[in-house]
Amino acid sequence: MKKFKVLAFSFVLVIVLGLGSTGFAETIRWKMASSWPSGTQIQWAADFFAKTVNEMSGGRLVIKSYPAGKLIGALEVFDSVKMGTIDVSHCSPAYQIGKIPAAALFGYIPFGMEAIPYLTWMYEGEGLALYKEMYSKYDFGFAAPCGIIPSEDLAWSNKPIKSMEDFKGLKFRTSGYWGEILTDAGAAVIMLPAGEIYEALQRNVLDAGEFSIPSMDKTLAFHEIAKYLLVPGIHQPSTILDCIVNKKSWAKLPDDLKAVVRGAAQLTTLRMLTNSIHKDISALEFFKEKGINIIYLDPEIQKKLYAKSLALMEKKAAKDPLFAKVWKSQRAFRKGFNGYKKLMTPQYE
Amino acid sequence: MKKFKVLAFSFVLVIVLGLGSTGFAETIRWKMASSWPSGTQIQWAADFFAKTVNEMSGGRLVIKSYPAGKLIGALEVFDSVKMGTIDVSHCSPAYQIGKIPAAALFGYIPFGMEAIPYLTWMYEGEGLALYKEMYSKYDFGFAAPCGIIPSEDLAWSNKPIKSMEDFKGLKFRTSGYWGEILTDAGAAVIMLPAGEIYEALQRNVLDAGEFSIPSMDKTLAFHEIAKYLLVPGIHQPSTILDCIVNKKSWAKLPDDLKAVVRGAAQLTTLRMLTNSIHKDISALEFFKEKGINIIYLDPEIQKKLYAKSLALMEKKAAKDPLFAKVWKSQRAFRKGFNGYKKLMTPQYE
Repeated sequence: MKKFKVLAFSFVLVIVLGLGSTGFAETIRWKMASSWPSGTQIQWAADFFAKTVNEMSGGRLVIKSYPAGKLIGALEVFDSVKMGTIDVSHCSPAYQIGKIPAAALFGYIPFGMEAIPYLTWMYEGEGLALYKEMYSKYDFGFAAPCGIIPSEDLAWSNKPIKSMEDFKGLKFRTSGYWGEILTDAGAAVIMLPAGEIYEALQRNVLDAGEFSIPSMDKTLAFHEIAKYLLVPGIHQPSTILDCIVNKKSWAKLPDDLKAVVRGAAQLTTLRMLTNSIHKDISALEFFKEKGINIIYLDPEIQKKLYAKSLALMEKKAAKDPLFAKVWKSQRAFRKGFNGYKKLMTPQYE
Repeated sequence: MKKFKVLAFSFVLVIVLGLGSTGFAETIRWKMASSWPSGTQIQWAADFFAKTVNEMSGGRLVIKSYPAGKLIGALEVFDSVKMGTIDVSHCSPAYQIGKIPAAALFGYIPFGMEAIPYLTWMYEGEGLALYKEMYSKYDFGFAAPCGIIPSEDLAWSNKPIKSMEDFKGLKFRTSGYWGEILTDAGAAVIMLPAGEIYEALQRNVLDAGEFSIPSMDKTLAFHEIAKYLLVPGIHQPSTILDCIVNKKSWAKLPDDLKAVVRGAAQLTTLRMLTNSIHKDISALEFFKEKGINIIYLDPEIQKKLYAKSLALMEKKAAKDPLFAKVWKSQRAFRKGFNGYKKLMTPQYE
């Protein structure tokens, strides 16, 4: 009988400790909110990141991904991570431009770097250290690039844009530094949310507007109400997205889950790039089939706008020491990269 | 006393089952052998992959990375994974060209795609499905791209190469399809291992030779014995490396560790690309400082060699149905990508 009791007790112990070994791999649940509307390619990246973490952690860290407005507003994600209302955000450093002027240099700037040099500067050059320096006073647990999109469309319009003169008086939907450059070029810049651009172009409230890459613009159906598509996306040659984790949430992770989050962010960056390019190839072909008149902006005009952009960047650098430091690092890197690219790019097609 | 025994027994059980919960996370150890010499940038990628898996799995899957010759020979890795002598290999599909002619199309070919279109075709287009079809008869557990290098150097030489005539009679170290193209152009192609190129160039056994990207060529010190560096690497605009896992080894992994391996391979691909570019920028600057005469091959010569390359690819496609299928898929993708690139690439610098 005593023997039986010992066995029974042991059996209970096996059950309890058996559960304990699952408890050893306890589920941590994170809320992630993004600044992106549901159904867009940028929200695709946020969801891809969450899915990748969930799979690689074997469900030990489960990130639930919320698009803008489902949990909190699009522009509340940064502060919400700081406060701990959410554990992680998916956004772009460029969205912090109001708080931190230098943040734009880590997201996108007019005539900025294309995706691969940008990521090379971030991952292998001085980028990531400067990025961490920028966010250091916010005391986050973790912050890193988590997605990048390639070149945007420059404008959808009902008027052809072929000269500097054509920008004058143009009612143009855009934002940020590019807005300042276009204003300087004589356009009347208007900021409208993505969902209102379609109707504004249709009703001629706007003469022209830009939102994102071809595949996202296809989702917004701009081809239905605009005759002309202007390229290339000199205002946004590539855009880095990032994820930021609350300090306490991060501290609770064991080292392997930290490595999983770090890895998933880089993996999302690669796959968002290739996935966006793949969708953009199809979207451009679709626009051609729909009879959209695609205009490549005269390189001479690009050069004139580049000069305006450089002047604006120097002005920003003069006002903000961190901006100046990052801008200097990027210029030095680009000089080296451009030398490399010139030598290593074939010319046979 | 009986009570004490029960407690003692329980204590033992706690210890045993406590270890059991670590046993739940039992360490799986994999041997990985690569085809790369120790100390090279390609071995860097193999080591990076192993390190990434080790960190993200929290030591539950430990991959030990062996360079060529440490465990098995450079060219034995493919068959060794098949047989299970090693669990995983790090190599390039191009190395299987002797067994599988189409394999070259997944590694590198002359005038092949640059890194980003190549990866877009692989990850988002038809590439990965065709790659799996190619390896299907070998019945591996897992196979995927695991690293990519950007454009190689075209040649180190002691004679300037500026015309098609200059290739005639040139004793040239290279291999594979590029060797066939140069032979057709009148060169005397010689295959030598990496470690012998330096001396062969020094002793004029070779007039010219190529091995890899600028940073790897710097490691091999070709700048010490050659006056001229010819670019761009039209013979190898990018090179995909891959990892292949034995079927039984793969079957033993739980789903989360499978996701970790899958993720680490993609992450290695991104980081090898940015890491190589970063090192190559410095290497090219170093060569300039050393007084190396860097010659960019006349685009007209590039076009003539491209025509030879296209003819050779068509010849290979006519002989092998899988080669023909993959070649057709790549040509269709490149047409779409080139249309996209032409529209989306800025011209202002």
